[in-house]
Amino acid sequence: MRQLSVFSRLATSVAVACLIAAPAMAQDAEAIRTAKTLRDRALEGTIAYDVVEQITTRFGPRMAGTDSERAAAAWGEEFMTGLGLQNVRVHEFPLAVWNRGVEQVEVLSPFPQPLTVTALGGAMATPAEGVTGEAVIFRTYQDLLDQPEGALEGKIAVVLQDTPRAQDGRGYGSTSVIRFQGPTEAARRGAVGFLLRSLGTHDHRFAHTGATSVSDDAVPAFAISPPDADQLARMAAMTDEPIRIRLFSTAGFTGHAYSQNVIAEVVGSERPEEIITIGGHLDSWDLGTGAIDDASGIGITTAALKLIADLPERPRRTIRVVWWGAEEVSQPAPAQGLAGARAYADSISDEAANHVAISESDFGAGPIYALGLPEGMGGTEFQRAAMRVLTPLGIVWDGAPARGGGPDTGPTVALGVPAFRLAQDGTDYFDVHHTVDDVIDRIEPENLDQNVAAWAALLWLIADSDVDFRAAAE
Amino acid sequence: MRQLSVFSRLATSVAVACLIAAPAMAQDAEAIRTAKTLRDRALEGTIAYDVVEQITTRFGPRMAGTDSERAAAAWGEEFMTGLGLQNVRVHEFPLAVWNRGVEQVEVLSPFPQPLTVTALGGAMATPAEGVTGEAVIFRTYQDLLDQPEGALEGKIAVVLQDTPRAQDGRGYGSTSVIRFQGPTEAARRGAVGFLLRSLGTHDHRFAHTGATSVSDDAVPAFAISPPDADQLARMAAMTDEPIRIRLFSTAGFTGHAYSQNVIAEVVGSERPEEIITIGGHLDSWDLGTGAIDDASGIGITTAALKLIADLPERPRRTIRVVWWGAEEVSQPAPAQGLAGARAYADSISDEAANHVAISESDFGAGPIYALGLPEGMGGTEFQRAAMRVLTPLGIVWDGAPARGGGPDTGPTVALGVPAFRLAQDGTDYFDVHHTVDDVIDRIEPENLDQNVAAWAALLWLIADSDVDFRAAAE
Repeated sequence: MRQLSVFSRLATSVAVACLIAAPAMAQDAEAIRTAKTLRDRALEGTIAYDVVEQITTRFGPRMAGTDSERAAAAWGEEFMTGLGLQNVRVHEFPLAVWNRGVEQVEVLSPFPQPLTVTALGGAMATPAEGVTGEAVIFRTYQDLLDQPEGALEGKIAVVLQDTPRAQDGRGYGSTSVIRFQGPTEAARRGAVGFLLRSLGTHDHRFAHTGATSVSDDAVPAFAISPPDADQLARMAAMTDEPIRIRLFSTAGFTGHAYSQNVIAEVVGSERPEEIITIGGHLDSWDLGTGAIDDASGIGITTAALKLIADLPERPRRTIRVVWWGAEEVSQPAPAQGLAGARAYADSISDEAANHVAISESDFGAGPIYALGLPEGMGGTEFQRAAMRVLTPLGIVWDGAPARGGGPDTGPTVALGVPAFRLAQDGTDYFDVHHTVDDVIDRIEPENLDQNVAAWAALLWLIADSDVDFRAAAE
Repeated sequence: MRQLSVFSRLATSVAVACLIAAPAMAQDAEAIRTAKTLRDRALEGTIAYDVVEQITTRFGPRMAGTDSERAAAAWGEEFMTGLGLQNVRVHEFPLAVWNRGVEQVEVLSPFPQPLTVTALGGAMATPAEGVTGEAVIFRTYQDLLDQPEGALEGKIAVVLQDTPRAQDGRGYGSTSVIRFQGPTEAARRGAVGFLLRSLGTHDHRFAHTGATSVSDDAVPAFAISPPDADQLARMAAMTDEPIRIRLFSTAGFTGHAYSQNVIAEVVGSERPEEIITIGGHLDSWDLGTGAIDDASGIGITTAALKLIADLPERPRRTIRVVWWGAEEVSQPAPAQGLAGARAYADSISDEAANHVAISESDFGAGPIYALGLPEGMGGTEFQRAAMRVLTPLGIVWDGAPARGGGPDTGPTVALGVPAFRLAQDGTDYFDVHHTVDDVIDRIEPENLDQNVAAWAALLWLIADSDVDFRAAAE
């Protein structure tokens, strides 16, 4: 496997050196033809949207460890069996379930009014009488971090920092630390509660949830809607009086339960033990119905595998789709979320060397605009073949290596399995992500089919070849 | 007064017949100059946005009869006194207060999940155990009306009809009957509950409230968010099983209280007893902070009066601004809402003949695009003078007479007082109206100033003239 790959890289280097396009090997030419066929079939319509519609309509929100997540998994097992996929199975794993409960935040004085909030995922309840304190408003998270210990004694820390809009989600990448660490950093300085401006780029009056770091040191923590963040800023500008706020929440981890990964395959014809893993996560936050996060990813990757399953031939290697459970929020500490991803990595740890590559579709329902491969794959025959198939879909090769393959790939990548990525345009993703607005109405079906086209074609190229993503990085 | 007006209309008719523009009388030329000055000053910036900011930030939601509405009124009295307006006063009136309480609607089977809802204003509570029934889904309201009596026995009626988008709000005009009468019509056919797709044009996952007709015959009634309406339609398409729904609400009228109108004037120099009434309503729904509905209207009309008050001269007639209370929801039955408007009409009923005209700004914060005058005013000298001043603001004369002057003018118009209207572009109004999203973030300050420019200029033309809107219609 590595032998051939090295040969192919050498051949490519020579070809590039001579400024002559290397002709694809016969084997590759056929694989490329099949990949193009898959791509073009996908563009004629796939089951991706239907999968999203079934999951979101039948099960609504699917919080980790709930009956709803479990029912969706059971449905998925039956559904994928019906698609003709192989080795369909459900892997259970234990976890603690977080419940939002009741939540209420209000300004008590000088301008009494309710605020639109949502508790951060994993956050703790307030005492029954709530938590009352004076708001200390920070324009940026750094302003909070600059406070010395004890500076916020008895106060409620409020961080109003904006999340910038960006195609690749780097805006959210830069601000999500506020949600994860803010409650702990605020508590460290003496605060009794924590509010942040909802992460995300929408400006409507609903709040954005998401996991926070659970620790005994943290304090009750909520996101406020963007207009409510603006409202607090206006209040602060309008008065010198202290702005007193009351927090109330019954959130918390309540008892142990099970979540599950749903797994299905197209088994390889020549090297079935070599596995390419793809998928999305089945669980969602409770606020929306998890359409873009992440029924879309499940729909896209399952539809891609279905297209491959419908071919008369099998690829050489095995392709496995995983509907991960409990991505968003779960315990035990210290890790938050990714319980299904960790369970999956545990289950394959003995055979990790056979895992060719892993990726996930977990960035919404926008079109794919770039391919990411492991470091060192630029200019290889594989990369050039892939771009020959993907370019007509509007997908570029920008040379940036795949930085992981999606949240649920993390624990498997930690075992040394290479990741690849089909990067989706996430310009609008954080308008919807983790909010009540994450519903199927936000999805353009054609965008899902473009995703499926890219996934099916790329998967075929990987699975019907002997490309070694590990070797490339060496 | 009427004498002169008839003369002026005759003169105008002659001028039009001769295809020669009638020269404005000296008096009018000066009034037009002043009106243009007011218009241009407004475009340089007004206090309108500041008023909206103060009201919405200091008082948040201002439900009829609440402490918040009362505090806002007290602030308004002080604020308008500080502006140098005259005869500033508060008129109290009694009403029953409606409280939303707790509300929860969920699909029980076959696809259990919560729905995003809001109780209709004035709707009744469910029994403590809720109301459970099978959903009967109607695509249009007419489909519901076509059902015979008893056809919905024990069922929950669901109407999914869309509200079309329209500049002048006629889409909402066509569907608001569903909200007003739907619960009663459903009950008449045996239904035990009523859901409708939120009126309005947004597609986000929040619901649109608004008054429903309160009667002993009605049933608990809720609006569901547009995505939830789509969700129910998808469920119905996906299963033949009955869709069972549970409704729970603690809404209701709870005790008696007071609301109030806040009144201020610029007293006329020659005929102070002749009054032109303008204004907006101070109360709001509880979901948003009532920025476009209707702190905007208060800001616009108050800012217009302030510009006039700042002139070195007074207009001949009195201009009065009213911050009406309790427009949205109140009792006693059978009339819902407009309690402040009715109290105002009662207070002027003995002197209604002295009331020259009335109008209200209660259609959001969009720019004004058309002038509406009473029937018969087209082609009059006044109409042409007004358009000379308003046209540069992008305002047209389309010949359509003013159909009322806004909700709070209704009871006064019923006394024979003519209405005029400055029609705002409401294309986006029902994206926000009566929802959580009715916040100041939705407002462009420049649009408010364009409104003020039109109001101030038009008010001056009316108040500094002897135009008789009643005569025109005779």
